[in-house]
Amino acid sequence: MKKPIISLTSDFGVQTQGVGIMEAVALQINPEAKVIHLMHGLPDFNLHCAARTMEAVTYMPIGFHVCVVDPGVGTKRKPIIIETGRGDFLIGPDNGVLIPATRFLGGIKKAVEITNEKYMRKPVSPVFHGRDIFTPAAAYLSKGIKINGFGKEISPKNLARAPYEEAKAEGNKINAKVISINKFGSIHLNITHAEWDKFNIKLNSFVALNLGNKSLNLPHSATFGDVANGEPLIFKDDYGKMEIALNMGNFSKKYSVSIGDECTIRKVAR
Amino acid sequence: MKKPIISLTSDFGVQTQGVGIMEAVALQINPEAKVIHLMHGLPDFNLHCAARTMEAVTYMPIGFHVCVVDPGVGTKRKPIIIETGRGDFLIGPDNGVLIPATRFLGGIKKAVEITNEKYMRKPVSPVFHGRDIFTPAAAYLSKGIKINGFGKEISPKNLARAPYEEAKAEGNKINAKVISINKFGSIHLNITHAEWDKFNIKLNSFVALNLGNKSLNLPHSATFGDVANGEPLIFKDDYGKMEIALNMGNFSKKYSVSIGDECTIRKVAR
Amino acid sequence: MKKPIISLTSDFGVQTQGVGIMEAVALQINPEAKVIHLMHGLPDFNLHCAARTMEAVTYMPIGFHVCVVDPGVGTKRKPIIIETGRGDFLIGPDNGVLIPATRFLGGIKKAVEITNEKYMRKPVSPVFHGRDIFTPAAAYLSKGIKINGFGKEISPKNLARAPYEEAKAEGNKINAKVISINKFGSIHLNITHAEWDKFNIKLNSFVALNLGNKSLNLPHSATFGDVANGEPLIFKDDYGKMEIALNMGNFSKKYSVSIGDECTIRKVAR
Repeated sequence: MKKPIISLTSDFGVQTQGVGIMEAVALQINPEAKVIHLMHGLPDFNLHCAARTMEAVTYMPIGFHVCVVDPGVGTKRKPIIIETGRGDFLIGPDNGVLIPATRFLGGIKKAVEITNEKYMRKPVSPVFHGRDIFTPAAAYLSKGIKINGFGKEISPKNLARAPYEEAKAEGNKINAKVISINKFGSIHLNITHAEWDKFNIKLNSFVALNLGNKSLNLPHSATFGDVANGEPLIFKDDYGKMEIALNMGNFSKKYSVSIGDECTIRKVAR
Repeated sequence: MKKPIISLTSDFGVQTQGVGIMEAVALQINPEAKVIHLMHGLPDFNLHCAARTMEAVTYMPIGFHVCVVDPGVGTKRKPIIIETGRGDFLIGPDNGVLIPATRFLGGIKKAVEITNEKYMRKPVSPVFHGRDIFTPAAAYLSKGIKINGFGKEISPKNLARAPYEEAKAEGNKINAKVISINKFGSIHLNITHAEWDKFNIKLNSFVALNLGNKSLNLPHSATFGDVANGEPLIFKDDYGKMEIALNMGNFSKKYSVSIGDECTIRKVAR
Repeated sequence: MKKPIISLTSDFGVQTQGVGIMEAVALQINPEAKVIHLMHGLPDFNLHCAARTMEAVTYMPIGFHVCVVDPGVGTKRKPIIIETGRGDFLIGPDNGVLIPATRFLGGIKKAVEITNEKYMRKPVSPVFHGRDIFTPAAAYLSKGIKINGFGKEISPKNLARAPYEEAKAEGNKINAKVISINKFGSIHLNITHAEWDKFNIKLNSFVALNLGNKSLNLPHSATFGDVANGEPLIFKDDYGKMEIALNMGNFSKKYSVSIGDECTIRKVAR
């Protein structure tokens, strides 16, 4: 049998003790598991960015994927497990953060509220569900415990809503949202490759971008090298969404962009 | 036999080469070991913060735990191994950084100075004992080499002192120290849950905090969600100590708190 | 058979999703491999710093070492594999970043351009060769696929040049370059221990350093503790090069040093 993959994502500081402890807890419950740190250091409590990161699970093996970004820690929001059509189990708080990923993973097959204390680390800290509820759930699932053993099913329509919907092209424009920004200052939009293809912008032709009070024209390129250093471009990113960047520069700094900002992309007359 | 756990903690930059090389050295000596990065990127040379992080070993499986935070690298301070009552081996410099953890791990069973060059990586760099002395010691211990094989025993009373003692309640007040600050700006004090329980502050009742020239009243809450956004609270953290935070805010920034700062907590009349 | 070691180095943000995904891709192809993160978060596109980090492979077991620092992503620069005299395989872009490491690893035994799509992750993203070309190549090599299976051989003399050569002593001086700066603000020069030994500066005697418009005298010490707090020193670093630092201080901040800066070290009259 292959080693099950458990991935961990959080807004904890990178390589801080919470991260190390979650790995230790997972291995204590299932020494056969392989823990991969998908991402840590996410902007504090930022559901947009966390949800977009969880979409990258698409590029991982089918596994047990934990997300601990939880503005509602210590409130009554539920801890949940979502089983996806592809066969993954997504584990985290019921705050919408797990929903966008399910759109890439074959949808929601089943959702369950975690209430069975048998599969929690005790005593359960009121402030660190990542260690005491979410990671143990992933580890027990990876050992073969069935999802229904953790608690009652929840109808998908009763789950908290996603922090963003996928943008839709409307005629000559798309209203979109900045859902993450990487270390290089490139911004990611809630526009899927498929939606962009429907928008039908030829490679190397230009679109007009409005972002706050700034507006600029930029080409739809295949990759950075297609524009000069310091020039902007929009292109298909490596995780199924549209990305805007400066070649060898920092777009978000130059244009003061923040996660959650809205923008509009328009076709330009030729 | 279960795979032995080796944990690594340092003030090296997160995911920098020193960290990766220590993992490689551990696996070269004991390919069966599982290396967990407990924490890296600790504030440079900060013994308070490092010692508090090592306390979190309590939440890990019994194992071989290395700490490389060493203001005295290249001086005559000894490299040591401490065997704990619980059965862990703590490995690092004799600068007090390993002592607070032993209070949570069943005390010091035995301490040894590492002098046997047979278990060092050669040549031994005068500046990177983490790679050449501490990590190899952990890896050889994890393979079953006995602690007495590394060097002569040291009496615990001859070890360097801890960077902090545990605070004690004195009547209506506790003088405490800030021993770490996390990414969210929450501060951790050297007050154990047990000591706080003796102080006997009812849940949701208020205490007065003096910190430098600032003073404020804040409730003893169970968790963030018990106070409004932006409001302060004191609560039991997830590692056995008391924590002060702002719900959805950054306490240390707002009040300019640094590690090592002293504070006083007083009961308030009702 | 021992588990093969795959190491990953990049200028991605530490513990960001690109890093986690590369680990997942490696394990999907070769579940028996052990992935070590040598370094991430390197300065964006900085070939000096990345090349120097790859030199640290010398301190790792023989393995499959990937470097993803690639100012030319999306241009025509080739993806390559270099087999070293020691038996490692270095995988990355043909931009010189892999060359300095080969000087420490027994030279270049063979170099190959990766063109065989059979060993790529598909579809190949034009912007994330780390995930789709380099990491898969490392993983397939680690499973025993021969280097010649990936594409045509390239003559070493046709590879892109290294970002720096090793400095050479010329009479009473050495012209050198700052090739990396660590979290503590210590700077690393392109002067090997062997070259320094030829320069023949006695331990604890002084040299004169010129760096931009600054000049200072500093001793050749064995380690930090040999000088007072806040004082500068030059010493043999832990990776085969010369390092300049302040004991318990930050040299690069104090003297405003950047990677790529040039400097001159001179013998001083006694």
